[in-house]
Amino acid sequence: MLRLNTRDPGFDKAFRRLVRDRRESDENVARDVQIILDDVRNRGDAALAELTLKYDGHALSDDADWRISAEACREAFDALEPGLRAALELAAQRIRTYHEAQRPADRDQVDETGVRLGAVWRAVDAAGLYVPGGRAAYPSSLLMNAIPAKVAGVGRLVVVTPTPKGQVNPLVLAAAHLAGVDEVWRIGGAQAVAALAYGTARIRPVDVITGPGNAWVAEAKRQLYGVVGIDMVAGPSEILVIADGRNNPEWIAADLLSQAEHDPAAQSILITDDPLFADNVADQVGVELALLPTARTATESWNSHGVIIEVASLDEAPALANALAAEHVELAVEDPEPLFRAIRHAGSVFLGRHTPEAIGDYLAGPNHVLPTGRRARFASGLSVLDFMKRTSFIQMDEAAMRAIGPAAIALAEAEGLPAHARSVELRLGI
Amino acid sequence: MLRLNTRDPGFDKAFRRLVRDRRESDENVARDVQIILDDVRNRGDAALAELTLKYDGHALSDDADWRISAEACREAFDALEPGLRAALELAAQRIRTYHEAQRPADRDQVDETGVRLGAVWRAVDAAGLYVPGGRAAYPSSLLMNAIPAKVAGVGRLVVVTPTPKGQVNPLVLAAAHLAGVDEVWRIGGAQAVAALAYGTARIRPVDVITGPGNAWVAEAKRQLYGVVGIDMVAGPSEILVIADGRNNPEWIAADLLSQAEHDPAAQSILITDDPLFADNVADQVGVELALLPTARTATESWNSHGVIIEVASLDEAPALANALAAEHVELAVEDPEPLFRAIRHAGSVFLGRHTPEAIGDYLAGPNHVLPTGRRARFASGLSVLDFMKRTSFIQMDEAAMRAIGPAAIALAEAEGLPAHARSVELRLGI
Repeated sequence: MLRLNTRDPGFDKAFRRLVRDRRESDENVARDVQIILDDVRNRGDAALAELTLKYDGHALSDDADWRISAEACREAFDALEPGLRAALELAAQRIRTYHEAQRPADRDQVDETGVRLGAVWRAVDAAGLYVPGGRAAYPSSLLMNAIPAKVAGVGRLVVVTPTPKGQVNPLVLAAAHLAGVDEVWRIGGAQAVAALAYGTARIRPVDVITGPGNAWVAEAKRQLYGVVGIDMVAGPSEILVIADGRNNPEWIAADLLSQAEHDPAAQSILITDDPLFADNVADQVGVELALLPTARTATESWNSHGVIIEVASLDEAPALANALAAEHVELAVEDPEPLFRAIRHAGSVFLGRHTPEAIGDYLAGPNHVLPTGRRARFASGLSVLDFMKRTSFIQMDEAAMRAIGPAAIALAEAEGLPAHARSVELRLGI
Repeated sequence: MLRLNTRDPGFDKAFRRLVRDRRESDENVARDVQIILDDVRNRGDAALAELTLKYDGHALSDDADWRISAEACREAFDALEPGLRAALELAAQRIRTYHEAQRPADRDQVDETGVRLGAVWRAVDAAGLYVPGGRAAYPSSLLMNAIPAKVAGVGRLVVVTPTPKGQVNPLVLAAAHLAGVDEVWRIGGAQAVAALAYGTARIRPVDVITGPGNAWVAEAKRQLYGVVGIDMVAGPSEILVIADGRNNPEWIAADLLSQAEHDPAAQSILITDDPLFADNVADQVGVELALLPTARTATESWNSHGVIIEVASLDEAPALANALAAEHVELAVEDPEPLFRAIRHAGSVFLGRHTPEAIGDYLAGPNHVLPTGRRARFASGLSVLDFMKRTSFIQMDEAAMRAIGPAAIALAEAEGLPAHARSVELRLGI
């Protein structure tokens, strides 16, 4: 864990280093991924079967090897322990309600020159959702990706998920049932992303691909950006907690660790104006780590990437937070509003002492797919808009053309595009 | 020009080939671009100066070589011929008005469990706009990129544009003045995109990069996607005109040619239910080409990529249009509403006989930066949203935590994330 103090002479340099540290895998898989994408594009299902046997140890022969049926998903849902089923249902309902309010409105108006202008939003026809296999197969993640797509009105929602050695994750199947997923294919890695983008004999292509994955999946999405739409490239998760000294250090330590337990490359940062509180949180992290079943990951993350920054006053915090542009920002103070107003760049903000980040991971309602690695400077969390697109429209009559046509002719001529000018002139009888 | 008829036995196959034909450069510049990006990242302004001399024949030594001053832009604007200046001002005003209505609303509500939920939209701090040099340097394109950024509230708007052999384009400077651009740098190519993304000693980095460019510029943006935000990768332009036989063939021919004159790889497609009208349009294209100063480009585009599709009834047109998902779609019929309602995938739609696509290129109001190459299936035209990002927020009190906290604990335990559960339990006094 790194301890910084804004009063120290070396602070600016150390903080700049922290801001620049991306913690992302620099594993260069671009070439290998390109070979896989080309292979699936050219050979389709045969390539999928070979790659799935090679990487997942799973043989794709009959239909049940390829695809998990809707019945199997429903059975997994019905078999859930009732408390867990109710929790999953509450999460789905709250996520749905929050995202329903994101549906954009169409527009259609006639302006003073008589030109009718507007835009209509429509869902994409089909969306593909990558769900990792193994430990990182989170049902919450499936809900957070699938529900915005359903709310958008996507007609066909396809999940791809690797089933290493044939193993399926019943929680993920249950979530797929609850979210109304239409197809679940037992493929993963770059080859699954390729199948979604290009289509194969078995799998029809989709228009948008979202969902978390390893470096190969992320690179496949990046290479296929433009062939399909994708969500933002995601790096390791991070939390920034801004806290005064009147917090319970146990709570704040748990919040920092809830990020750290995700991934050894995750980052937890505390900014506080109270040095004694900082010490207490650091101690408490040690105490909680000793009891934590996920201590191995969390310790590695905290030791390598954890940071405590002491500030003279919390007024200094927003500038630091804006430079860090963190995925999650907690404002653990009595009145978080002034700080909140000053924070320009953050994926999601958790206001006050009673809002741990974990509540946002599961069921507060907003999406937990958020920009990481300072991308909150320009990117937003996943939303219904990622599964929709806008078509603008224009309608003119002769009067409207008389009003604005001549200016279009002047501009077309200035740009050296005479056929543009001609198409307007003809309608003006010139 | 290719002539198809939906009644012909070979139609489906020919149409599928048309849909798949991407017309995009398969020039593989990925490796060369990567070398340039690394060079600018490592050596900054020195690399920029070398590359600019090499590719643009322009020496970057004193400040005036690097940058075009605000005064020079204002002078270019003042020197415009008055009719052209008025046309540019009308375009800017109409584009601004249309885009102002795109500004998204924040949300902030408290739900029935006492959880406060919402989202705030904020502009990115800085945006970079690529403006090609030479023939394709269109002032309209500068306005279409810069005005949405200004409407979004972007604080710093930076233009990069190559000035081959030192030559500047006064129309572009005038548009930069009118749009309120803050900085104009005389650099281009992948090196300019790298400078915007990484920053150099002279040029501070930006958060979002938009604007058209050649294959090198497009590849640089693609590789830097994630370091910065970018607009959609753009390919050659295209128009689909759906017209009945009661149109003036001269008008429709001019519309088809207004697309063709952009680029030899541009594509113009006519769908009509009237074979005689189809013949007349084809003839008229020939007549107009004979007079067109841009005939060389337009002829190459029309001969290589032009298509006329005869349908038995215009009711067949929407399905074809949705498969093509064209950038521009004209509906040249008396009542375009039924066709418009059936078209799901299009960048922009031009309704009725009096709405040539060229009017949308310049000053109707909607953006002319639109998804090409079937990307209208999942992508939208450039908008104010491309220069903004959304931060979600959550605020809970003790009662709200009692209402939804236990479900979060159940989900965290099911996912094997005990610190997540702990951060909630502590707040519930468990």
